This record gives sequence, structure tokens and C-alpha cells, in this order.
Amino acid sequence: MNKKLLLSFIAMVGFLAGFAQQNDAFVAKNIAEEVMRNSTAYENLRYLTKKIGHRLSGSSGAQRAVEATAGMLRAAGADTVYLQPCMVPHWERGTKETGYIKLADGSKYNLSLCALGNSVGSGAKGVTAPVIEVKSLKELDELGTAVVKGKIIFFNIPMNPAYIRTFRAYGEAGAGRRSGPALAAKYGAIGVMVRSLASNIDEFPHTGATQYNDSFPKIPAVAISTKDAEWLSRELKQKMQLSAYFKTNCRMLAEAPSFNVVGEIRGTEYPGEILTVGGHLDSWDLAEGAQDDGTGCMQSIEVIRSLKALGIKPKRTIRAVMFMNEENGGRGGAAYLQWAKDRNEKHVFALESDAGGFTPRGISMDMNEEKRAKLLQWKALFYEYGIYDFSPGGGGADIGPLKELGTALAGFAPDSQRYFDLHHAANDVFEAVSKRELDLGAANMTLLMWLVSEYGL
Amino acid sequence: MNKKLLLSFIAMVGFLAGFAQQNDAFVAKNIAEEVMRNSTAYENLRYLTKKIGHRLSGSSGAQRAVEATAGMLRAAGADTVYLQPCMVPHWERGTKETGYIKLADGSKYNLSLCALGNSVGSGAKGVTAPVIEVKSLKELDELGTAVVKGKIIFFNIPMNPAYIRTFRAYGEAGAGRRSGPALAAKYGAIGVMVRSLASNIDEFPHTGATQYNDSFPKIPAVAISTKDAEWLSRELKQKMQLSAYFKTNCRMLAEAPSFNVVGEIRGTEYPGEILTVGGHLDSWDLAEGAQDDGTGCMQSIEVIRSLKALGIKPKRTIRAVMFMNEENGGRGGAAYLQWAKDRNEKHVFALESDAGGFTPRGISMDMNEEKRAKLLQWKALFYEYGIYDFSPGGGGADIGPLKELGTALAGFAPDSQRYFDLHHAANDVFEAVSKRELDLGAANMTLLMWLVSEYGL
Repeated sequence: MNKKLLLSFIAMVGFLAGFAQQNDAFVAKNIAEEVMRNSTAYENLRYLTKKIGHRLSGSSGAQRAVEATAGMLRAAGADTVYLQPCMVPHWERGTKETGYIKLADGSKYNLSLCALGNSVGSGAKGVTAPVIEVKSLKELDELGTAVVKGKIIFFNIPMNPAYIRTFRAYGEAGAGRRSGPALAAKYGAIGVMVRSLASNIDEFPHTGATQYNDSFPKIPAVAISTKDAEWLSRELKQKMQLSAYFKTNCRMLAEAPSFNVVGEIRGTEYPGEILTVGGHLDSWDLAEGAQDDGTGCMQSIEVIRSLKALGIKPKRTIRAVMFMNEENGGRGGAAYLQWAKDRNEKHVFALESDAGGFTPRGISMDMNEEKRAKLLQWKALFYEYGIYDFSPGGGGADIGPLKELGTALAGFAPDSQRYFDLHHAANDVFEAVSKRELDLGAANMTLLMWLVSEYGL
Repeated sequence: MNKKLLLSFIAMVGFLAGFAQQNDAFVAKNIAEEVMRNSTAYENLRYLTKKIGHRLSGSSGAQRAVEATAGMLRAAGADTVYLQPCMVPHWERGTKETGYIKLADGSKYNLSLCALGNSVGSGAKGVTAPVIEVKSLKELDELGTAVVKGKIIFFNIPMNPAYIRTFRAYGEAGAGRRSGPALAAKYGAIGVMVRSLASNIDEFPHTGATQYNDSFPKIPAVAISTKDAEWLSRELKQKMQLSAYFKTNCRMLAEAPSFNVVGEIRGTEYPGEILTVGGHLDSWDLAEGAQDDGTGCMQSIEVIRSLKALGIKPKRTIRAVMFMNEENGGRGGAAYLQWAKDRNEKHVFALESDAGGFTPRGISMDMNEEKRAKLLQWKALFYEYGIYDFSPGGGGADIGPLKELGTALAGFAPDSQRYFDLHHAANDVFEAVSKRELDLGAANMTLLMWLVSEYGL
């Protein structure tokens, strides 16, 4: 190629690239306008939270949510809507838990508490024993059987308030809830109380799954509110020894049949290349599962609705998925992978929204360097809509299994300051969601799904 | 300078610059840790909102807020705390407003409404007249006296939901509230109803100041909820003509004495160079003035507290100012300028927080190119704490007058998605504030004030 030709070639490529970018910005603006004006995510969420309520795996709420979201996907205009069956654990809280600390004068300090998910019940008599406070799993290891045997272990591990990314604080402080009961049982404890994984001091106990170790007995475990945890820790410092009582009525039933709910727009050029966008449909039973994860589900449906409303025909297949059983088993995510393998599906990209429907800030990327570079080319398109932080990080629990297929994974990462005020607690209700924040997230998610559908990865 | 010497000089400068940056990042981390762990902003806000409540200029609440925040500044460790007197308008709402639309069948549709700030009352008989809907001031001009005379004008100007920066939507849609009543009076209208300046559809009327024109009569003006505005607009389309009634009991009293509240840390090297950080202490009377602007005041006090708690001695004087009368007169801001001029003070920099205590996103800069460039050098320090968007823009209404002195002005610009759900309405209460969001804003504000105190502008 002579120099003149080369220069005009470069100019042409530059022109086309510029044209493509302008076109992308135009589509971005149209998507944002459509979602901010006409989104149905908020009203769908109102239905899911207020008409159905909690949706713990195996519950009647979960089944009604499956039917309702299938209807929402049809109303959104999905080309096809179908269910993917999966078996899920069926844990029930039973009647409300009670518990208290017995004070020296014989009076009782009632605790705000709730059983941890998957926990066994305490039996009709409840559990009574002296309380031992520990600040870490390591401290429990050091105390060992001599001290721990016959006691109730109180894991008082606060979330670090100085971490600006609250998920980091949650991850670090979460060891007590996740593995504390199993470890305490190893040393002969008869019950466990964990400080709620909450970033504020209040009266809400926060539940969440714990995982037993089959080598040791399953002992009953509860979360107490951060306020009570602070109180109990102070009391223990003064009184040295205190006795606690709690009674839980939860139990694990036989596994139950359930479903992932899927709605898709078939790609016009590469229908075999599948792009997944999803959240999880199940939720803990203490509230309405609004921010965790009603918002992620409703946003994923809005991706379908807004593209259809705009008449945009994606080149690759976009699938909105309501995953079942993220909270206490991950069976929906596993079933999704199995479905893909059974059908030899090609999964190019997956985006999960399971960090609340708060104001958008970032996209976390779990993919190779090359794909990350491609994604980063689009970064500037999102700035106007609040997303500026594209960082390496996990996609999410439900799409995680797709990693086995080499799928590029991404996580929608909204602002995290308010999430752990309500995560897994009774205040995770519709009223805690801002319509504009929810919709702005959906707009960004739609834009990202459209870009990948248009250009691949 | 020979080349070798030049190179080592450059290396040294680079080293020192690197050292300074590392040191700044270290200070930033310490500030964030201090604020996120030990901030008193949230508890101070609880006191201001729950113990004092609304603080409209001239009210007893405003006076109690002056005394309370002076106490908070002393508790925060300010070197000196003092009051700057100013006279303020004293407007009172009186007993609750009522109003309705008369339907064809003789029944009444009750409106959720409130008088606009500074509005005259309707008199004991109230105002009754046919309603004319307009979508802009221009439309009113076109209708003119022939149509408008004797009517109630309904300004139905919605905030544009597609603007991601909600302040832009507020600015554009606000003409009806600000100048609508004056213009309607020019054409002989006898009353005005404006659609609330709210970004959501709900039942809260949102008040706010209107400004009369002395050339025309002062006619009573109210805001109606967005829900009622949507309903009324639909009804008018169907019924063509409807009659409205409303009665307001507000009145403007004689001007009252009030104060700005000031607390400062004296600079160690350049005490004569003054850096202001502030919010406004007055608030509308329908709620608790939590996000508008209790948060800005409490954050400004936290700037003082955290620097003192860390033992940081700023080189320049840092002044936290609770401005009085931002909402319906701006007298505190004017008095602050006059105070500065009377004492020949040198005002280097001012930062205002009056956009709510939401999660931080940006700093708007109203200053010359050179100072902006200096400020931008520090941009990366804020990224970790949520601020990434440094853009040209206004500082704020209270520090605005300092522009006359050549002061560099900046505005704290948090996320704006939720602000206009509650701005000037009954739901602007303590519960609408997130502790972590509030504190994260305070941490960023402290960092910015420290950087300017350390390096000047």
C-alpha cells in the first residue's frame, strides 16, 4: 500500500470508528431515555415485594415468584419464556425465635435474634449455657475444647467501617456466620450466636446461610442485632460470666422442585451466542427481598423490555434469568450450567446484578485480558450514566459456574454504602429502593448487554 | 545548569513530589478512617432533626438550631465559635392549607397541597376560580389577559426524568414555582397552583420560595403533589373546564434578627487566609430539613471535629459556617460577605454542601483555570472515597457572594438520584439519611479542606 492510500485507509477507519462511537452514544442515550421514562422495573418490584413477599427456596412465595416473573418477561416482550427445573433445599424458620441473657439480678435482657439459614432448630427446651465471646475463628481455635465445651459461642466480628467497599468488610467479617457454627461444634459448643453482618448499629438481626461440617454435630445458630452484640460485649467485660438462652424452631425439610425463570430475545445474526443477564429470585424470609435481589431480577427483565420497546434487535441472544436458590444452596446457578452443557450452548458473556439496586458506580470484570480490553473501549459511554469504575472482580454467585465454559463474567457494582444496613434483615423492603437508582442501574445494564450483543467480546 | 545536574534536580523534584503524594494519600486514609469510625455527624443530625425539627428563618426552631450548632462546634473542638448577626425574612405558613377540585357531580377531589414559601395567604374565604393548565411561562404569555384574568393558573411543568443530573431537571422545571405567580398576576390571575418540583410521582407537596414582582398584585400560590398534578391534567383533558378552591393561611411578618454560626480552626502558618466550608442551617417547615440541609451543616462540623481529633493543624484557617436563610432570602450568605468586607478578610476558598448527604460523586468548581488545574492535581486522592467527577459548575447559593472577593468556590456534589424525592417536602426526615453516605461525604470534604489548607490554591 502506498503512503497516500494508507493515509486514506487510516482516515476511513478513523471515520468509521468515530461514526460507530457516535452511533453507540446515540443508542446509549435512547436506552437511558426509554428506561428513565418508561421502565416497569419499579412497579414490577412493588408486585414482587408487596404481593408476593419473601421467596425462600421451596416456599410457596418462591413458586408464586416463578409464575409472576415468567408473566413479567412475557409482558416485557421476550421472544420465548421458559423454566429450567432444579431441586432446592427447603429450610423453614418455623415460629419466631426467642432468646435472652440472664442477668445477675435474675432479670432477663431479651435479644433481637433470628436463626441462621440452614441451621438446625434448638429443640423444644432451647439451649442454655454460659457465653464465650470470640473475635475470630482463630481465637476459637486457641481456646479449644477445654474452654468451649458445653458453651454458647458468641462470634463478635464487626464489619470494618473504614472499608469504603462494604463488600470487603462483609467478606472479612463473614467467617463467623459461614463457618463459625461448624468450628464451634468441633470444640464441643452447644450453640452459636453471631453478631449480625450489618454496617450499622441497630436492632435488626440479619440472617444468612451457615454451613455445617458433616464431621461434627450440627448445633443451633442465631444472629443477634449489632446493638445487642455491642451491649453483650460490654456486659461480658464487666460481668465476666453470663448465661444465654435461645430457642429456634427452624428445620430442613426434604428437597423441593423449583425453577430458574428465563426470558430471551433471539439474536438476529448469532442466535447461538448467548449473553445472560440475571439476578436471583429467591430471598430470605425475614422481609421482602427488595434489594436482595428483587432489584437485580427486575432490572434484568427491564433489559428485555427496554430493548423490545426501542425496537432494537440484538445480534446475539440476550437471556434474562431469574436464578433460584442463590441464598442457601446455589442450585439454580448449577442447574443453569448443566442446562448449557446438556445443550452444548455457547455462552459468550454473563452479567449479574446482586449487589442491590443502588445508584450505579461500576462493573466488575472476571474475564481474560483481551476481553477486558474490549469492554474497556466502551467505558466512556457509561460515564454520563454514573458508571466509571471498571475493575477486575467477581461476576456473581449465580453466573460463577459458567466460568467452566470460558464465559466472560461481569458484575453490576452499584454504590455499596446502604446495602448492609438491610441485607438479609427485616428492613429489606420495597420502600428501601429508589426508583431512579433502580432504573439508572437497569439503563446501564441494558447498554452493556446491547454493546456485547452488537460487537461480541 | 549542566545536564547531569538538571537530571538530578528533576529526579529530586520527582522524588519530593512522589513523597508529597504518598504523604497526602496517607493523610487521606487517616481522615477517612477517623470519619468512618468516629464521626459525630449522624448523631448531631439526629439531634438537629428530631429534637429541634424544622428551622425556617425567624422561627424558634431556627434560633434553637443556632444555639445547638454553636454547641456542636465547641464540642468538635473549634478554636473559636461565634455568631454573625443578620436580619431575615420571617414567613409563617399558619394553619394547614386546604384545597380541592370541584367535580361535575358536585363532589370534591381533595388536593395534597402546601403554600409556596414567601406567598401571601388567600384570605379567610380562600380562592375559587376555573383552572387553566399551562406547560410553560411562554404558554402563559401566549394566553394573555383575555384568558388568564380571574383564573387559577396551574403550572404543570414536570422535571425531566431523562436528565441523569436531577439538578438540571430541577433548574429547568423550576420556572413555574419561582416566577409563575408573578407572571400570572401580571395577566390578572387570582391564584396559582404549581406541580411540585419532585422527581417521583407521589402524594407529597413540595414547597419552596416564589418571588413576586412589585409591579403586580401578590396572589396566593400553592404547590400540589405530582400525583394530583397528573390526575388534574388528565381530568382537564376530559372535562375541559374545572373549578378549583384553595385556602392558605400564610403571611410575611416583620424581619427578625438571626445569625450565621461560625466555628474555626486557626491556621498555623497563614491564619489570615480563610477557607470556608458550610451548609445552610435554615430549612423549610414541612419536615425536619434532614437532607436539605442538615447534612451539609453536620458534615461541615465534622470537618472541624475530625481534623482536631487527628491532631492535624491546618496551615490556613478553616471555618465551618452554618448559613442562615438560604431558603427564602439568602441573607446569611450576604451577611457573610459583608462581614468579610468589613474586616478586610482574605477568602481563598469556599466549599458548600447543599445537595444532600448522599453518596459522594463529585466536586463542582467555580474558579479560574489555574486554580482548577491545581485542584485537579489532587483528583486521584479522592477516587478511593467515591469522588471522581471534578467539573466546572456552581459552588452554592451561600458562598456565591464571595465570588466578588475572587474566592475560589466549590460545591460538594453527591449522587442526586434521591434528592428530589424529598426536597422541601414532608419526607425530608432523619430516616432518609444514610449514616455511611453522610460520613463518606464528610470524609471527602475534610480531605479537600485539608489539601487547600496545606497547599493553598
